[in-house]
Amino acid sequence: MVSSPTSLPSSEEHAANGGLVSRRWLLRSGLVAGAMSASGSLVHAEQLRVPEWSSTPGLKMTGYGQPSPFENSVVRPALDLFPEGIGDGSGVSFTPLEKLAGTITPNGLFFERHHSGIPEIDPAQHQFAIHGNVKRSLLFTVENLLRYPMVSRTCFIECAGNSLFNSMDEPQQRTAGEIHGLIGNAEWTGVPLRLLLDEAGINPDASWVLAEGADAAKMSRSIPLAKIVDDEAIIALYQNGERLRPEQGYPMRLVLPGWQGSMNVKWLRRVKVLNAPVHTKDETSKYTLLQKDGISKQFTYEMGVKSVITSPSPGMEPSNPGLHLISGVAWSGAGRIKRVEISADGGKSWADAIVDQNPASKALTRFQLAWDWKSEPAILLSRATDETGAVQPTRSKWYEPYNSNQLFHQNSIQAWSVSSSGGVSNVYI
Amino acid sequence: MVSSPTSLPSSEEHAANGGLVSRRWLLRSGLVAGAMSASGSLVHAEQLRVPEWSSTPGLKMTGYGQPSPFENSVVRPALDLFPEGIGDGSGVSFTPLEKLAGTITPNGLFFERHHSGIPEIDPAQHQFAIHGNVKRSLLFTVENLLRYPMVSRTCFIECAGNSLFNSMDEPQQRTAGEIHGLIGNAEWTGVPLRLLLDEAGINPDASWVLAEGADAAKMSRSIPLAKIVDDEAIIALYQNGERLRPEQGYPMRLVLPGWQGSMNVKWLRRVKVLNAPVHTKDETSKYTLLQKDGISKQFTYEMGVKSVITSPSPGMEPSNPGLHLISGVAWSGAGRIKRVEISADGGKSWADAIVDQNPASKALTRFQLAWDWKSEPAILLSRATDETGAVQPTRSKWYEPYNSNQLFHQNSIQAWSVSSSGGVSNVYI
Repeated sequence: MVSSPTSLPSSEEHAANGGLVSRRWLLRSGLVAGAMSASGSLVHAEQLRVPEWSSTPGLKMTGYGQPSPFENSVVRPALDLFPEGIGDGSGVSFTPLEKLAGTITPNGLFFERHHSGIPEIDPAQHQFAIHGNVKRSLLFTVENLLRYPMVSRTCFIECAGNSLFNSMDEPQQRTAGEIHGLIGNAEWTGVPLRLLLDEAGINPDASWVLAEGADAAKMSRSIPLAKIVDDEAIIALYQNGERLRPEQGYPMRLVLPGWQGSMNVKWLRRVKVLNAPVHTKDETSKYTLLQKDGISKQFTYEMGVKSVITSPSPGMEPSNPGLHLISGVAWSGAGRIKRVEISADGGKSWADAIVDQNPASKALTRFQLAWDWKSEPAILLSRATDETGAVQPTRSKWYEPYNSNQLFHQNSIQAWSVSSSGGVSNVYI
Repeated sequence: MVSSPTSLPSSEEHAANGGLVSRRWLLRSGLVAGAMSASGSLVHAEQLRVPEWSSTPGLKMTGYGQPSPFENSVVRPALDLFPEGIGDGSGVSFTPLEKLAGTITPNGLFFERHHSGIPEIDPAQHQFAIHGNVKRSLLFTVENLLRYPMVSRTCFIECAGNSLFNSMDEPQQRTAGEIHGLIGNAEWTGVPLRLLLDEAGINPDASWVLAEGADAAKMSRSIPLAKIVDDEAIIALYQNGERLRPEQGYPMRLVLPGWQGSMNVKWLRRVKVLNAPVHTKDETSKYTLLQKDGISKQFTYEMGVKSVITSPSPGMEPSNPGLHLISGVAWSGAGRIKRVEISADGGKSWADAIVDQNPASKALTRFQLAWDWKSEPAILLSRATDETGAVQPTRSKWYEPYNSNQLFHQNSIQAWSVSSSGGVSNVYI
């Protein structure tokens, strides 16, 4: 860190212990500019290097662009969940949250969770049916669906098993993305499911639907009809403007904003209208929450309010003392993020972070705060609050209703320990 | 088009000549669902095919995902502008607007305009300087910049030469993207330039800056200081969440929301603070507007209010009569889109389209309307109005101040002629 022309924030401008600086200070750019200075010494333009790429013509245009070769370490780390021959293709790959900025997850880095690999679907052969307790069953091709009115909605999809490493007895030393990266945020565009159900004509006694995928695992989930209204249930054909990627459900997936990932059924094959839930394998053997009394809670749709600091985080060392920017993402399946607080002393004192003023509902929201770090050990936490007033719980509070084997819907506060040398590790508090 | 259970919109529900249906009708999904029916006949689930991909495990996860092989025709069509050896690497590639939906342009399909190809920049070697009429010149590495507070902003970037094919004497028969696709819309994340200028300390008599790229063409543009405020001037490091692609300026570009593309300097190398504009080669020999009186207008920053119907459009034939969805995108460099009207009779009558209720400022905005087409020839137009009240002009109105050789800032109304067989072509009205 280079000496700066203006002074560091005064102690009156600190908002909490451990060097957290009031968000008001960060919003006054004049001060920040100098104090956060990471720039080098004075230059004249003539001192600027003229590298070879500035003096020879560069590469030609391409049909479909790719990241810079210098960014080839920015990938989704993958984890096969079962040995070959038992659960072929069952696994996850994580969005590398700590390497991204803003709120959109680019399609190439959007997390994966497959129960039987990625089917290679020829869209001309794909069929989608609406049937069951309706006046007339309907059969759609992709071409058919592309002719309907579409809506766009920016929202996250989060696996119910996201952050399950923090449900283990010992804190796992993994990156922010490898712990919390079973989430991605995108603009989804497609046909409101309600429109198609209206066309089929739902019978008055119907109350649930079954959504089933065309993968070999035939992912199947029961969804209450009440969710299927407006843009709360979209048959998405496009993600961030282009057609869905194969691993995101090409040619079509269900999007249920804020609800657990597996209900956002990929490679959607049929929606059957029913009078009761089905209790499929995917909502009995999995995605249930084992409680202290031994009873498993089923149909836990909504993903809880949550946040994670992505910078600093494990593998990214703030090795020099001085002003650092704390940055992270927050989200809630219940609506908009209203507040994110940050603690540098393990939760004794808290400072409000700067949060996007007008965040989208059920979407990733970025937060930031300045941190004047004196090379002293610190425990960094972030705590999100959503517009319903729900507050992200501590890990012990989160565990209260659950059996210790419970892994799903882990939305407790992430604690990062920063050592005096700047190393960051995962700790439980 | 299959027979539908409910009736087509009545003549009272038509909003303009030629079969344009009131937007109120499209918003009542119950009616729409039946009337726009593109579904097949009744099915039982047992009738659904079980293709091979539903009975065998699929592909494994990947580090960085790619589009489906079935979408490999969705690419940026490229156009070299000069013969080899004269303007190596000078060219464009177009965003295929007619193949996209929603508002975000995916990074792989975001248009390109290069004046000397794409430099292959090693970010560890890249330098960025702020100098000139400042208290202290500053030199930044990419690593330095990544430590500053960042802002995110979703906005379009449009080449000043976008749609120039419609400035030619005869209407060119090209796709919507090949005419209007020198535009893309993304979430840009980076450091407000103002923050860094504050750190350098702008002297009171300064009023302009020069921004210069590190490509061999050294793209250079003069920018009034007044634009460099809040998130109206961002040194973007990320596009749609990930680091910039090489063809978008990796490792850093300037983003000036709403202003002509070339001012959003890619591969940004320096910003020099000045007391007057520089009149660089890129703002004298190019990007000036030749007027009727023979005088060229310089420094025409803001891109005008504009829209284009992307469906139907050339190459996409609405071959069957019946209800079709008209869809397109609108934008304005001056702010938010307030209204889009559609005509099916070449401008004699107009109907309001459904426009996103809360569009972002200076960003692509989607519009839609239902069209009851009777296999009669039609001239489809869209006309956008922005929040300042500016209305997209007709082609003849647009030409009024200009010499007939004037190509830039072409924002006039696009007319698509639909023949009785459904073929779509570009026409001037």
